[in-house]
Amino acid sequence: MKQKHVVAAVPNFSEGRRPEVIQAILDAYSSVEGARVIDHSSDPDHNRTVVTIVGEPEAVSEALFRGIAKAAELIDMDEQQGEHPRIGATDVVPFVPITDVTMDEAVQLARNLALRVGEELGIPVYLYAKAATRPDRVVLSHIRKGEYEGLKADLEAGKEERLPDFGPGKLGKAGATVIGARPPLIAYNIYLTTDDVSIARKIARAVRYSSGGLRNIQAIGVLVDGRAQVSMNLLDYTKTPVYRVTEMVRREAARYGVSIKSAELIGIIPQQALIDAAQWYLQLDNLTPESILENYLD
Amino acid sequence: MKQKHVVAAVPNFSEGRRPEVIQAILDAYSSVEGARVIDHSSDPDHNRTVVTIVGEPEAVSEALFRGIAKAAELIDMDEQQGEHPRIGATDVVPFVPITDVTMDEAVQLARNLALRVGEELGIPVYLYAKAATRPDRVVLSHIRKGEYEGLKADLEAGKEERLPDFGPGKLGKAGATVIGARPPLIAYNIYLTTDDVSIARKIARAVRYSSGGLRNIQAIGVLVDGRAQVSMNLLDYTKTPVYRVTEMVRREAARYGVSIKSAELIGIIPQQALIDAAQWYLQLDNLTPESILENYLD
Repeated sequence: MKQKHVVAAVPNFSEGRRPEVIQAILDAYSSVEGARVIDHSSDPDHNRTVVTIVGEPEAVSEALFRGIAKAAELIDMDEQQGEHPRIGATDVVPFVPITDVTMDEAVQLARNLALRVGEELGIPVYLYAKAATRPDRVVLSHIRKGEYEGLKADLEAGKEERLPDFGPGKLGKAGATVIGARPPLIAYNIYLTTDDVSIARKIARAVRYSSGGLRNIQAIGVLVDGRAQVSMNLLDYTKTPVYRVTEMVRREAARYGVSIKSAELIGIIPQQALIDAAQWYLQLDNLTPESILENYLD
Repeated sequence: MKQKHVVAAVPNFSEGRRPEVIQAILDAYSSVEGARVIDHSSDPDHNRTVVTIVGEPEAVSEALFRGIAKAAELIDMDEQQGEHPRIGATDVVPFVPITDVTMDEAVQLARNLALRVGEELGIPVYLYAKAATRPDRVVLSHIRKGEYEGLKADLEAGKEERLPDFGPGKLGKAGATVIGARPPLIAYNIYLTTDDVSIARKIARAVRYSSGGLRNIQAIGVLVDGRAQVSMNLLDYTKTPVYRVTEMVRREAARYGVSIKSAELIGIIPQQALIDAAQWYLQLDNLTPESILENYLD
């Protein structure tokens, strides 16, 4: 059985316009053996780039450190502008456990990196999500309140509740960075057999956490290519799995006389989420990793 | 994206009683770097051992050759007895394409190995299944007709239609070997919410190829632990997938007022069969290997 420890990380840095800066930071993220940049996308309006790195935990941590250092060198937050909220050159860095890594281990990776970034780079670091040290820092938007400018003013005004978990209590031109750990996020859209977007909106309200639905689910109803779509983020597929959300959407849709036309993933899904779906639909009560041939390959 | 070429092979040899002989043959199968014995099971009544090897095509071929040579050295078919039909010390060797290997390539591996076994070991080899050179050799039982003793007599009587594809036209003490290529076989059982085995038998008749059902499906109805079970072999999950068989069993069961209680896999399933099921049930029309995170790992 393969037992390679694998984490992913999804650093967001605050540059989506200058190609040479983006490339230099991506090069830093790619410079460690054992860690691999598997995806990146830049948005000029948001002035932001999102990177996905996978690999061995220590290699990914080192790659993240190098990327954070390079972004601090090349991005000046006093100049940076864009639509997306941000507090730092490297804005947010979630670790995501993938294979044979527990959430606790991912939290530890986040803390170790936060310590190093604070001490060696002199950048204030806030721990968030599963790595949060305080309840009011679990949610990213709370930490990012007021953005770079607001946080800078608050720290200069000596507001103790805004002091970082690691690093200095004031912002330089690289701003601050939020580091943490979270489960893999699945971006998942379901197309309905109707062009009536009001039905998609009603279904979104039924399934999402914020309006009384399933935990770990964010959802909105939108019209895409003339078809009503329930667009969702699954924030923890291990607790609130893809198949359960799908079947809830199916049932709600039936109440309005419509069906599921098709579904799509945006970006990347952990294989286990698909295997969990197969196991549930096929009622394979005793499916184990030992049942799957590929798990024997090196 | 990982692009490692992987085949499996499932050699069956005619010894299931003498532990030291079994071990020596398993050692031969395990002696090549790049090929791995991931499963083996011996049955004393059948006097037979079934081995599963996976790895790089050339490594698996070499491992198979060494195992066949060792079995020829240690098993005397003039002495061998057991319940299972057999014509040789190594009775049958199917290659199974797994990852980035086509069926045509698996057929070529079978032919190359057959040539080598015939020439270097002097063992008559018959090609079967997808590697068969004649329609009457597609099915294993046709080749194995009369078993070792019957084949020996036929060859001595000069029956031309029984001449092998490779190697000499007469049997030594190692007998003959059947080599070929086939898709992965999935052994799959569905338990019903009833103890009435007659319902399982009716469903088995409905779904299996031999009595008018789905191609590539073998099925029987049995009683296991007081519960009716439809026990199936899926001979080509790429053409006749697990989910389609499952939904057909579910519909047939509903006609008798029963449901599916659970399902189980016996042995190993290719991961793709589970991903295909997830894709079908979730209606993920555009799922690609690029959607799955693990495909980016080395």
